[in-house]
Amino acid sequence: MRKSIYQMISPKLHGESRSSYYEGGIVVIILLSLLPLTVKEPNLFYRELERLTSLVFIIDYLLRWLTADYLLKKGKWSFCFYPLTPLAIIDLISFLPIVSFLHNSLRVLKIFRLTRSLRVLRMIRHSKNISILLRVLKNQKDSLLLVSVLALAYIVVSALMMFTIEPDRFNHFLDALYWSTITLTTIGYGDIYAQTDFGKILTMVSAFIGIGVVALPAGIITAGYLEEIREHN
Amino acid sequence: MRKSIYQMISPKLHGESRSSYYEGGIVVIILLSLLPLTVKEPNLFYRELERLTSLVFIIDYLLRWLTADYLLKKGKWSFCFYPLTPLAIIDLISFLPIVSFLHNSLRVLKIFRLTRSLRVLRMIRHSKNISILLRVLKNQKDSLLLVSVLALAYIVVSALMMFTIEPDRFNHFLDALYWSTITLTTIGYGDIYAQTDFGKILTMVSAFIGIGVVALPAGIITAGYLEEIREHN
Amino acid sequence: MRKSIYQMISPKLHGESRSSYYEGGIVVIILLSLLPLTVKEPNLFYRELERLTSLVFIIDYLLRWLTADYLLKKGKWSFCFYPLTPLAIIDLISFLPIVSFLHNSLRVLKIFRLTRSLRVLRMIRHSKNISILLRVLKNQKDSLLLVSVLALAYIVVSALMMFTIEPDRFNHFLDALYWSTITLTTIGYGDIYAQTDFGKILTMVSAFIGIGVVALPAGIITAGYLEEIREHN
Amino acid sequence: MRKSIYQMISPKLHGESRSSYYEGGIVVIILLSLLPLTVKEPNLFYRELERLTSLVFIIDYLLRWLTADYLLKKGKWSFCFYPLTPLAIIDLISFLPIVSFLHNSLRVLKIFRLTRSLRVLRMIRHSKNISILLRVLKNQKDSLLLVSVLALAYIVVSALMMFTIEPDRFNHFLDALYWSTITLTTIGYGDIYAQTDFGKILTMVSAFIGIGVVALPAGIITAGYLEEIREHN
Repeated sequence: MRKSIYQMISPKLHGESRSSYYEGGIVVIILLSLLPLTVKEPNLFYRELERLTSLVFIIDYLLRWLTADYLLKKGKWSFCFYPLTPLAIIDLISFLPIVSFLHNSLRVLKIFRLTRSLRVLRMIRHSKNISILLRVLKNQKDSLLLVSVLALAYIVVSALMMFTIEPDRFNHFLDALYWSTITLTTIGYGDIYAQTDFGKILTMVSAFIGIGVVALPAGIITAGYLEEIREHN
Repeated sequence: MRKSIYQMISPKLHGESRSSYYEGGIVVIILLSLLPLTVKEPNLFYRELERLTSLVFIIDYLLRWLTADYLLKKGKWSFCFYPLTPLAIIDLISFLPIVSFLHNSLRVLKIFRLTRSLRVLRMIRHSKNISILLRVLKNQKDSLLLVSVLALAYIVVSALMMFTIEPDRFNHFLDALYWSTITLTTIGYGDIYAQTDFGKILTMVSAFIGIGVVALPAGIITAGYLEEIREHN
Repeated sequence: MRKSIYQMISPKLHGESRSSYYEGGIVVIILLSLLPLTVKEPNLFYRELERLTSLVFIIDYLLRWLTADYLLKKGKWSFCFYPLTPLAIIDLISFLPIVSFLHNSLRVLKIFRLTRSLRVLRMIRHSKNISILLRVLKNQKDSLLLVSVLALAYIVVSALMMFTIEPDRFNHFLDALYWSTITLTTIGYGDIYAQTDFGKILTMVSAFIGIGVVALPAGIITAGYLEEIREHN
Repeated sequence: MRKSIYQMISPKLHGESRSSYYEGGIVVIILLSLLPLTVKEPNLFYRELERLTSLVFIIDYLLRWLTADYLLKKGKWSFCFYPLTPLAIIDLISFLPIVSFLHNSLRVLKIFRLTRSLRVLRMIRHSKNISILLRVLKNQKDSLLLVSVLALAYIVVSALMMFTIEPDRFNHFLDALYWSTITLTTIGYGDIYAQTDFGKILTMVSAFIGIGVVALPAGIITAGYLEEIREHN
C-alpha cells in the first residue's frame, strides 16, 4: 500500500493519471492557501480555508515522509534523512504557521506567515518548461554571479558616497543603501533624493553609469539564450 | 453586385486600387472616430463626428456580413458563422457605444466607450510589415508565456510579502499588487512605498531581482529576432 | 581663391591639416555658442559671446554658399539650390536667433532660441565613427519604425483608456498622453497617477505589457548590430 | 628578505599559499575599513578600527614601495617611478584620510573621506573572473564611448531646451542637467518636472527617444559578449 501511495505523490515525466491528478490538486490547494494572505482581517471563511489547506499540507508531508525509502533508496535511514532534504524543509515551513497559530503567540505568527509565501516555490516541482530557462541561467551562472556582485558593490559604494556627502538626508546607513538601490534600479520613488548640488552631481554620475550596470545582465542572458537555441538546432 | 462589394472591402496582397482606397478611407475614419474620446465634454462637432463615424462602421459591418459567403466559402451557413469570427466581434464592439448611446444609459455607456479603443485593433488588418514581428513573437510564444507567468508570480509573491509586513500602507490587496507592479516595472510613482526598515529591505531585494526578471523577455525577443533574420538570409 | 576656401571648409576623409583645423575650430565655437543658454540672465560677457559666435556662423554660412558650385556641381544653379539642402537649412536656423534678437521681439525670440540647440547637429558632419552606428540604424530602419509606431499607438490607446476612466485626474487630453508616456517609458515622476481601483488595474496592465514594448527596440538594435559585426568580419 | 616580502605581496596566477593568504587578509581589511563610513557619529570602536586599518594600508604601501624593483625591473629608478603608477596612487589615496585626520581640519576631511570608497577599487587587483568581462568592454570600447558621448550630448541638449522653456522650474543650469539625467535614465524621482504644456511635450519627446538611447549600450554589450563566447568555442 505504501508503494501505491508513493506512485501517487511522486511526479512522473510522462505521468500516470493518478499522479498528475494529485499534483494538480496540490497546485490548486497551494493557490487557495495563499488567499487568506490577501485580506487584513480574515473572516470565518478565510480562517477555515487556512485550517483546511494547512491540514492537507501536513498530510502531504507525512505521506512523503512515510514513503521516503522509495525516493532516497537508503533503507531505514531514509526516514531520518528525508526531513533534512531542501524540498522537505520548504514543505515543513509551509505548514508551520498554523502550528504557531495554536500557541496564540500573535507577533511571532506575523513573521512566520511570510514564510508561507514560499509555498509558491513548491510549484517549481510541478513545472516542466522552466527547465529550459534554468539551463540558460545555469550555463551563465558564473557571469551572472559576477555581474550581480559588481552591481551590489556599485550600490554599496554609491550609498557610502551619498551617506558621506548628505548625512542629513538619511536616518541610518540602511536608508542610504535603500536610496542607492531604488536609484540604480531606475525605480526612483522620490521619497529620498539628493538636495545639495554636490549630491545631485553624484546622483547624475551614479545614474549614468547605472545604465551600463543594468545592461550587463540583460546582455549576458540574451547571449546565453541564443547559444542554447543554437546548440538545440 | 455583392461580388463587386466583396472585392472592394476585402484586403488584397497586391491590391486593386478600389480595395486599397476603401481600406485607406476606413483607416482615416477609425482615426477620426477616436477624436471625440480626447475631450471631456464633446461639443456639437464631436457628437456629430461620433454619429457619422459609427454609421460608417455599421455600414461596413453589414457589407462584410452580406458578402460573408465569399470569405468563409460555406454557402448559406457563412451568414450564421460570420458574426462569431473574432474580427467580426471586434467590428461589432466598435459601433456598440453608439447603440448604447441611444438608450441614454449613461453609466453603462462610459464603460462601453472603452471598448471603442479597440477600433485601433482593426488597423492590424491593414498592415503588412507587422507580420514579421508577429512571427518572432509566435516562435518564442512558449518562452515569453513562461517568462510572463514567472514575472506575474514574482509580482504576486512580492505583493503578498509586503502586504503582510506593512498592512497599514495599503487599503486592500489590490493596492499591494499595484505597488508591486509599479516597483518591479521600475516605474516607481512614489505614491505607495515601504516606510519600515523591514519593508525597505524587502523592496531592495525585490527590486534587485526584478532587474533580472525584466532582462529575461528582452533577451528572449532579441534571440528570437536574430534567429528569424538568420533563417531569412 | 574660392577653390582654396572650399578646400578649407569641406570635410575630407583623410583631411589636409587646413581643413581639419577649420573643423576643429567650428566645433569649439559651437560648444562656446551653447554657453549663453546655460544662464538665466546673460551678463555682458555672455551677450558678447552670443554676438561673436553668431557672427562666425554667418560667415561660415556665406563661405559655404559662395563655394556651393564646388559641392553640388550644378554650375550657377548651385547657388540657388544650396540654401534648400538640409545641412544649409540647419546652418541657417543656427544663426537666426541673433537675427530675431535685433528685432527685439522677445517672446518669439524665446521659442527661436530653442532651435539653436540644433547647432549640436552640425557636429554630426564632423564625426566618423558615428557612421557605423548609423548603418545599423539604417538597416533596421523599417523594423524600428514599425516598433516606434506600435509603441506610439500603445501610448495613445493607454491615454484614451485612462482619460475615459479617470477624467478628473487630467486637465485635457495632453495630460493623459503625458501620463501614458511617463508611465510606459518607466520614468514615473508621480505627478499624475491613477487613484481609483479601476484606474490602478489599467495602470498595472499597461505597465506589464509596456515592458515588452520597451524590450522590442532593444532586441532589434542588438540583432542588427550583431549582423553588422558578422558581415564586417 | 625583500624578495620574500615581494613573493608574499605580489598576486600570482596559481598562487602560493602565502601570497593568497596575504591577499585574502587585505580584502577583509578593506571591507572592515569601510565600516566606519556607515555610521554618522563614529564611536570609540569605529575610531580605533579606522586607525588600525589605515595603519595596515600604510604598511602595505611601504612594503610595495620597498620591493618596487622586483615589480618594475628598472633598478634603483623603480623606487622613483613606483609612487607614480596608477595602482600606487589609488593605494596612497586610500590612507590619506587618516593623515588629514591628524591635522584636525574637519571640513577637508569630509571630502577626502569620499576617496576612501576607492579602496574597493583595490579589489580589482584580487579578482580573476572580472577579466572576461573587461575584455568584452575593451573590444567594444570605441562603440561604447561613442554611445556614451551620444547619450551625454542628448542629456545636455534636453537640459538646454527645458532650461529655455521653463526657466522658473530650475535654480541654475545644473538643476536642468539633473532633471535631464534623472528623466532619460528613467529614474524619475518627481522632485523636478515640467508643468507647462510645452514643457510636457518636450518631456514626452525626450523620454520616447530616450528609450532608444538606453537600448543602444545594451545592444552593443550583448553583441560584444556573444562574439566573445563564439571566439572562445
